[in-house]
Amino acid sequence: MLKLDSRDPGFQEAWARVCARGSDEDEAPVREAAATIVADVRARGDLALLEHTRRHDAWDPGSAAGLALGPADFAAAYRGLPAAARRALSLAARRIADFHRRETDARVPARRDAAGATLSQVVRPLERVGLYVPGGTARYPSSVLMTAVPARVAGVREIVVTSPGVKGSGEMDRWTLAACHVAGVARLFKVGGAQAVAALAYGTATVPAVDKICGPGNAYVAAAKRLVFGRVDIDMIAGPSEILVLADAAADPAEVASDLLAQAEHDVRAVSVLVTPSAALARAALAAVERQLADLPRREIAGRSIEERGAVVVTRGLSEAVRLADAFAPEHLALHARGAAGLVKRISRAGAVFVGSSTPEAVGDYLAGPSHVLPTAGTARFASPLSVATFRRRMSVLDLTPAALAALAPSVEALARAEGLEGHWRAVEVRVAKRASARARRVAPAKAKAAGASGAPRARAAAGGARR
Amino acid sequence: MLKLDSRDPGFQEAWARVCARGSDEDEAPVREAAATIVADVRARGDLALLEHTRRHDAWDPGSAAGLALGPADFAAAYRGLPAAARRALSLAARRIADFHRRETDARVPARRDAAGATLSQVVRPLERVGLYVPGGTARYPSSVLMTAVPARVAGVREIVVTSPGVKGSGEMDRWTLAACHVAGVARLFKVGGAQAVAALAYGTATVPAVDKICGPGNAYVAAAKRLVFGRVDIDMIAGPSEILVLADAAADPAEVASDLLAQAEHDVRAVSVLVTPSAALARAALAAVERQLADLPRREIAGRSIEERGAVVVTRGLSEAVRLADAFAPEHLALHARGAAGLVKRISRAGAVFVGSSTPEAVGDYLAGPSHVLPTAGTARFASPLSVATFRRRMSVLDLTPAALAALAPSVEALARAEGLEGHWRAVEVRVAKRASARARRVAPAKAKAAGASGAPRARAAAGGARR
Repeated sequence: MLKLDSRDPGFQEAWARVCARGSDEDEAPVREAAATIVADVRARGDLALLEHTRRHDAWDPGSAAGLALGPADFAAAYRGLPAAARRALSLAARRIADFHRRETDARVPARRDAAGATLSQVVRPLERVGLYVPGGTARYPSSVLMTAVPARVAGVREIVVTSPGVKGSGEMDRWTLAACHVAGVARLFKVGGAQAVAALAYGTATVPAVDKICGPGNAYVAAAKRLVFGRVDIDMIAGPSEILVLADAAADPAEVASDLLAQAEHDVRAVSVLVTPSAALARAALAAVERQLADLPRREIAGRSIEERGAVVVTRGLSEAVRLADAFAPEHLALHARGAAGLVKRISRAGAVFVGSSTPEAVGDYLAGPSHVLPTAGTARFASPLSVATFRRRMSVLDLTPAALAALAPSVEALARAEGLEGHWRAVEVRVAKRASARARRVAPAKAKAAGASGAPRARAAAGGARR
Repeated sequence: MLKLDSRDPGFQEAWARVCARGSDEDEAPVREAAATIVADVRARGDLALLEHTRRHDAWDPGSAAGLALGPADFAAAYRGLPAAARRALSLAARRIADFHRRETDARVPARRDAAGATLSQVVRPLERVGLYVPGGTARYPSSVLMTAVPARVAGVREIVVTSPGVKGSGEMDRWTLAACHVAGVARLFKVGGAQAVAALAYGTATVPAVDKICGPGNAYVAAAKRLVFGRVDIDMIAGPSEILVLADAAADPAEVASDLLAQAEHDVRAVSVLVTPSAALARAALAAVERQLADLPRREIAGRSIEERGAVVVTRGLSEAVRLADAFAPEHLALHARGAAGLVKRISRAGAVFVGSSTPEAVGDYLAGPSHVLPTAGTARFASPLSVATFRRRMSVLDLTPAALAALAPSVEALARAEGLEGHWRAVEVRVAKRASARARRVAPAKAKAAGASGAPRARAAAGGARR
C-alpha cells in the first residue's frame, strides 16, 4: 500500500500516478483480439456465437436455441429461491425503481418565442437495449437489477441480457435468473465476452440487435463495446471498481477499513484510497484493515488489491483532502467526516457520494436505490451514473410561423453566404418569396381596383425580385 | 437517384440498403492511421503537433505558440466584419443561448424516504471541453456557435476550439474567429485531424487536456474520437449530413426540392431522401430539383450527392411514410404535410424535426435555436442532439440514517452473500453492530440501576453477537 503525505517533496508526481490508475496499459492486443471476434460474429452470426462459446466458455450449447432463456426460466428460478432471497431481490428492485422514477428529463419544454418560433425538445425511450452481466464463476444478480430496472422505468420496450454460463457446463446462476424475473427482462442469452457485445450490436438469427449496450465486463467486453460504439450506443468503458474514503479525525477506523476492504474484495485490480488530514486515523484505519483482512473469505484478492493498488494520503487539512478527492474523480466517494452533507457541494467529480458513516458503499451496491453502475477510472470527470436518462433520448422540434421565418431570413442569408452554402439560403428564400407573393396577391386586388390594374404581375415581380 | 415504391417486390431489401447509408465501409485503414497519429501526439506532444501540421496542412507554425489564438484575435476578427455579419452572429448566439437556457436537467431531487434514506442526483458542469470545428477550405462559424454556446450555458469553465488553418498558409477564417468571440471561447488552436483530437484528449504543453470533445469532423477525426473515448468523453461519431423529407400531396414541390438540395450541397456523401404517398408530388419535386440544381453554385457536389445517395420512396399512404421515416432515424426530418405538428408524436427517432413548410432545415442550421449538432447515420435510434446535457454530468448522493441502514441490512446480507462478497456485508454489519451497542449502552444503565448491575458487558455481548 502506497503511503503519501501531501507535505512530502514529490507528492504531486506520486499523486498523479495514483490518479492515473494504471491507464497506460497497452490495449492494442486486446483490441485486436476483440476486433477479430466482433468481425466473426458480424459475418457468421449464430455459428460464430456457438463456436466462441465452445472455445472460450468450454461448453456446447448444441444449437443457438440452447443459448436462450426466457421468462418461464426466470420465474422458475425466482420460485426456487428461499423466501428471504426473494424478499431481498424484490426490495432491491422496488427501491431502485422508486428512486429512478423520480428522475426528471433533460428537455426543453415547448414555448413560442416573440419571433413566432415554437421550439422544444421531446423525450423518447430507446426501443431495445442489451445488458451485459458478468458471469462464469461469479454471479451478479445486483448488476441485472441495477441496469434492467432503470431501463424498464425509462420505458424501454424490450430488455435483453447476455451473460456467460458457468465454464464447462453453461449453467446459469439461479440468482441472476431470478433477478431477470423481478426486473422484467425479456430474454437472456448465455453468451459472454466480445462475442456477446458483437451479437447485441449486429444481431444474429437468435440474438436481436439492440440500440444500446450497458453494463460492465472484462477487458474484451470493454474493447468490443468501444469497437461497436456508433453502430449502437454504449454506456461507458468500465474499469476496475474503486473507492476514495475521505475521513477526518473523528471517523471510526473500523468503518473506514470495512469500506476499503469491501471495494478491494471485488478484484485484485480494484482501487481503495484513503485521504485524511489525520495521521492518527490513517494509522488506525490501516491497522483495522489488517485485522479485518484476517478472516475475510476473499482475503487473498482483497489483500493483493490493497497491497498493490491501495493508497493512503495524509493531507494538510480537510480542504486539501476534499480537493484531492475531487481531482481523483472516484467511482465511489465515502465521506466519513463531521459535516459530511455540507461537503457535497464542494465535490463535482464522483460517481456516487456516500454521506456519513451510516451510508456504507455496500448498501448502494445492492439496494439503496441509485444504480450502482458508475463511472470508473476518473471518468467521473465527464460521465454520469447509469440512470433513466441512459435509456432515453431527446429530439429537437422546430415549428416556425411564416412571420418568424421572414424575420430570421436576413441573418440566415448572411450566415449561409459566409459558409458558401447558397442552397441553404435559397431554401429559405423560396418560402419567403412565395409568402410575400401570396401577400401581394391578397393586397394587390384592392389596390388594383383603385388603380384599375391587375395585381398579378406585381406579385410575380415581387417573388422574382427576392432572388438576388 | 434511387426511386422506390413500397408496393414493389424487393422493396424491403432496397429500403434496408437506403437505411444502412454505406455503413459497411471498411474503417480499419483509417483507424490504424488515426491510432498512429494519436500515439505520436500522446508521446511527443507539441513536437508531434507541429510535425503533423506541416505534413497534413502544409504550413509551418514555427513554434507551438504559432498554433494558438485567443480572445484578442477573436475580438479583432469580430470588429473587422460588416455590421450585418456581426448582427447575424450575435442574433444566432442569442437565440441558441435562449433556447438552451430553457433546458431542464435530468436529475433526481433530494427526498427522504420512509426508511430514512435521503437519495438524490445532483448536476455539475464539465470543467473544460474541446470543440472540433472543421476548417481548411471550408468555414463553419455556425459550428462554433452550435457547440460553444450550449457549453457556455451549461456552465463549462473553459471552452477551447481546434480547427485546421487554411492549407498552405495556416490562416484562420475570420468568421470562425468572430464566432469564437460571440460564443465566449477561451482559446483556438489551429490544428486539425486526428492530431487535434489527440491533443485535446491527452494534452500537450500548449493544448490543455479536456474532459470532453465535441463537434463533427472527417473520417480521421471520427476514428480518433473513437480511440480516445474513455480517456475523455466524446459527443458522437458524426457521419455525413442527411435529411428525410416527408411530404404529402399538398406539399410545395419547390420547397421540398430546396430542402433536399440544401442537404446535398454539404457533401457528395450527404443523404437526401424524400418519402411521400403522392407519386405526383414525387415527380414534381424531382423536376424542381433538376431546375434548382441548374444555377446552384455547389451544383456539382449537390448533383453528385442526389445522384449517388439520394432516394425517393412512394408509399401506400401517410402512415406508412411516417413509419419509414421513423425507421430511417434521420438526422433531419422535415414534415411537409397537413397536420405536421400532429405527426410529431408518432416519431421517436430523429435528430430534429422541422414542422411544416415555414420551417426549412436551413434555418435550424444557423439560428432557430436548438444546436445543429445532431445524430447522423441512424444513430438517432439512441443518440440525442448536442445540448446543455452534453456538457453536464450527474452524481448520485446517498445519505442514510442509522435506522435506515438497520432496516435495509438483512437484505444487503442476503444479496452480498449471494454474490460471495462477505466484505460487503461486514461493512454494513460493523456499523449496525456499533449502533446497536451504543443503543444498548444508553438503555442498559437505566436497567442496570434497577437491577444493580453494570450495563457495559451486556452492550459488548450485543455487539459481538451481531456477527454471525
